[in-house]
Amino acid sequence: VAVSGLGEFELIDRLASLVAGAPPPELKIGIGDDAAAWATAPNTMTVATADALVEGVHFDLATTSWRDLGWKALAENVSDVAAMGCLPRYAFVTLALSPATPIAGVEDLYRGMGECARAYDCTVAGGDVVRAPCLMLSVTLIGTSAPAADRTGVEEILLRRAGAIAGDVIAVTGPLGGSAAGLRLLQSGWREGPPADPADAERALAARVLVETHRRPRPRVAAGQALVAAGVRCAIDVSDGLVADVGHICEQSDLDAELIGDRIPIHAATVTCFNNQGLDNRGLDQGLENQALELALTGGEDYELVGVGSADRVAAASAALVAQGEPALRIIGVMQQRTDARPQVRLRKPDGALMPMTRGGYRHF
Amino acid sequence: VAVSGLGEFELIDRLASLVAGAPPPELKIGIGDDAAAWATAPNTMTVATADALVEGVHFDLATTSWRDLGWKALAENVSDVAAMGCLPRYAFVTLALSPATPIAGVEDLYRGMGECARAYDCTVAGGDVVRAPCLMLSVTLIGTSAPAADRTGVEEILLRRAGAIAGDVIAVTGPLGGSAAGLRLLQSGWREGPPADPADAERALAARVLVETHRRPRPRVAAGQALVAAGVRCAIDVSDGLVADVGHICEQSDLDAELIGDRIPIHAATVTCFNNQGLDNRGLDQGLENQALELALTGGEDYELVGVGSADRVAAASAALVAQGEPALRIIGVMQQRTDARPQVRLRKPDGALMPMTRGGYRHF
Repeated sequence: VAVSGLGEFELIDRLASLVAGAPPPELKIGIGDDAAAWATAPNTMTVATADALVEGVHFDLATTSWRDLGWKALAENVSDVAAMGCLPRYAFVTLALSPATPIAGVEDLYRGMGECARAYDCTVAGGDVVRAPCLMLSVTLIGTSAPAADRTGVEEILLRRAGAIAGDVIAVTGPLGGSAAGLRLLQSGWREGPPADPADAERALAARVLVETHRRPRPRVAAGQALVAAGVRCAIDVSDGLVADVGHICEQSDLDAELIGDRIPIHAATVTCFNNQGLDNRGLDQGLENQALELALTGGEDYELVGVGSADRVAAASAALVAQGEPALRIIGVMQQRTDARPQVRLRKPDGALMPMTRGGYRHF
Repeated sequence: VAVSGLGEFELIDRLASLVAGAPPPELKIGIGDDAAAWATAPNTMTVATADALVEGVHFDLATTSWRDLGWKALAENVSDVAAMGCLPRYAFVTLALSPATPIAGVEDLYRGMGECARAYDCTVAGGDVVRAPCLMLSVTLIGTSAPAADRTGVEEILLRRAGAIAGDVIAVTGPLGGSAAGLRLLQSGWREGPPADPADAERALAARVLVETHRRPRPRVAAGQALVAAGVRCAIDVSDGLVADVGHICEQSDLDAELIGDRIPIHAATVTCFNNQGLDNRGLDQGLENQALELALTGGEDYELVGVGSADRVAAASAALVAQGEPALRIIGVMQQRTDARPQVRLRKPDGALMPMTRGGYRHF
């Protein structure tokens, strides 16, 4: 039997059981969350997360520059640390290169990674460079919880996937569907430059914004900090796609989730470029024929955070973000008691009907 | 220009300069040692190291089982942590697999990794599994310094490559050249089973020991602990080969090293299988025609530690190891003031002559 017969998550479950030993008492979160976490001092947790990018699978140098690739490889790990309510600190980079790889390309890759490291105040502190028949980049990022003398225990210090309770509201830190729309434009041959027809200026501008959103995702570290400081206990970053990522919270918290279709914040430029039916999400009635909404629900790589907690704590986090000049949180749904054998994500359509959502999202094998 | 035009270390230097920002004051060791290190509490350092293994470059499934590969991938990182005088704690594993990879193989890989984790009291706490056109395994291992209330500052808490001073003796924790000899046997078609001719029984037994030594390296965590506790400040693990690894200490400490040829502890089974000239290292006089000595000097992957410090501190570490039932340290050379523009490693031959050593060791590109 080949690994292609299993999904990524099933494979990880099987492998996790094989390496399981007796974890030390300091290890509070192991395999299964955005990051692992262990106590390093009283009221302080250290977290670590690893992500790999493979040429031809996760990126294509025809549509991604070396420099943007470097930014993105680090940014997606920064987002995992942000989703734990932590601050990124030290990155370790393993780079597998063919001997024919141009040095200028690899240097640009590291420049892009350095830009991201400086933007998020973390340091590339080590790694490995090896020869390989394919190009691959693996980043492990270590982060720490913010000082919190008044908070104790992993539940109060970190955001976790497992922390949701029924009745908690589901909030998102920003617009969705921009990155996937940008990727779709790149894959269909988008090129930089003024529009051929001046009447297309608005769409051309929107397209450019989407491509930039795809190339340079901005993880929401400050939002993660605001959520955990306001007492929110549960979060995830939108990497696989909103429905899939809310599904991870459902699995880990053993709850259902209801997303309210007309509350989903679709990236405005995605609406401009991909929504032929206007802004009212009418497409929901035609089974997600609304491409823009589909991108927002399942596109992935948005790197916004989904925070789940009581309405008052989410409101407090939102107010704190607004006071810092960041966008307000947007409530897009609610957690509910599980009604079936497996946790479910459902979408409430404008007509009031509930649509069960398949687990849209990136499949790794 | 392709990366093949640069050596691994030159490439890493160039890339390190591109990501360099302003490292935080807690970061005590960045790119360039066996591991990076930062302070996490008073008198406590956290270290992290990353290593990658690529099929066809670092291993071959024709001569390595999945299970041994799993052991080795973790063990080589454990060795880096041991060389810092630290204890391994949490491992993060990125696995790149072709969809056609057999699940049974991947499960065996994780079983072997789990065996190593249990043997060294560390935990596989996370990672990533991705699809790729080639098989690659990247491990990042996080370790911590042992409690040391009486020691302060990175120099006293950790072993570093940079800590040597002229007059320090060079000591090694065990025999060298076993792993490379085992690999050579595997590559020349060694197969398990009784010898065809009973007269070959001794060689057959030695060959089996070498293959096992190659397949299941045993990093010297206890020896690293004994070195740092005895006040030794400088160490490295023998991964690239003794001469190359002592060369790294020379570079980082800006000193020369003299190795004493007839003090080098050649693995006994390597002598049995590869030394046609007996045990007296006579081969030195013929320019390293002695294959066994050559394997010990340049073979690599021994994962013994080289400790460098004052003779009395090295003696104290050795006595502490013997008291724990571990082998004594063996002094094999001395650090000296640099005499040329670049630091040098020289070998003292039995006739008293000094031979400059080329930087033998694994070249990555």
